[in-house]
Amino acid sequence: MSSPDTPSCAHTSPPRHPPGDDVPLRLTPIGWVVERTDEEGLVKVRERYRKCLEGLEGFSHVWILWWGHEADRTVTRVRPVHGEVPELVGVFACRSPDRPNPVLLTLCRILEVRPNSGELRVSGLDARAGSPVVDMKPYLPGYDEPDGEVSVPEWVEMVKRGHRPPRTRGHRR
Amino acid sequence: MSSPDTPSCAHTSPPRHPPGDDVPLRLTPIGWVVERTDEEGLVKVRERYRKCLEGLEGFSHVWILWWGHEADRTVTRVRPVHGEVPELVGVFACRSPDRPNPVLLTLCRILEVRPNSGELRVSGLDARAGSPVVDMKPYLPGYDEPDGEVSVPEWVEMVKRGHRPPRTRGHRR
Repeated sequence: MSSPDTPSCAHTSPPRHPPGDDVPLRLTPIGWVVERTDEEGLVKVRERYRKCLEGLEGFSHVWILWWGHEADRTVTRVRPVHGEVPELVGVFACRSPDRPNPVLLTLCRILEVRPNSGELRVSGLDARAGSPVVDMKPYLPGYDEPDGEVSVPEWVEMVKRGHRPPRTRGHRR
Repeated sequence: MSSPDTPSCAHTSPPRHPPGDDVPLRLTPIGWVVERTDEEGLVKVRERYRKCLEGLEGFSHVWILWWGHEADRTVTRVRPVHGEVPELVGVFACRSPDRPNPVLLTLCRILEVRPNSGELRVSGLDARAGSPVVDMKPYLPGYDEPDGEVSVPEWVEMVKRGHRPPRTRGHRR
């Protein structure tokens, strides 16, 4: 997979932090989800980052990366779908907000972009109002599509078919 | 769009940080890209996070979220494709590693998962060896696919067709 702007070839200097170096990585909210209904979400971008929005209106879809500020960062395994799947899975094998770094990822349809006021209206956003937004990236066909056959575990298929097993105790471990 | 584990309904308490509150958000590397060739990448997950990998082997594709440690975090607009597209676009409208929060996103095919040793072998990864990895999430068909028609600006189509305009001076602004 290659994109119109792959990071790999954008820099030629060696990595500053070799493996094993536990560097602190800091994010700053670029904005917040200020409203959200079942139909749409409104993100307001902070003034200093509004130029970053220019040109986004040319895309139909955008990835919203937001911060799960209510997440539990100590959880390593969960029972997916709020405890309704019997098996425990690692948090890298599901989309639980409880994970070491709660950067959550949602693909949204763009309804409106207003760089001047920093407003982005989208549909499909599942972030609660008040959630910090840390990045947004345009959806790139080809780059953001899987190559070849796609497969998922049985528990995901089960959930998609609408079958949920009886709830079991113990959501996390 | 709805997922087997949408964050929105996983918590019922109000957001801890209201909009406007400039909370510091901290990430920790969950591992590093330790090798990368054109064919494949090897991610090594730190010991404390290895349980998080369990169950990932049931998926064919994974999103790797990695940290662009060489990125310039002050850049708001770029000329995409290393200066070869004439127009300046906001960094939220392209996939430049230079952006306020350089959490970079690549969809990869899973070749092998070894939770015991913390190793994940993938293809399609465009992170340089040495890059910190901050999260990984399974690819979920339906949830990670756009709904309805997809569109992108002319410059993306141009790049996909292999046409690149003459390089112009001034990559960033």
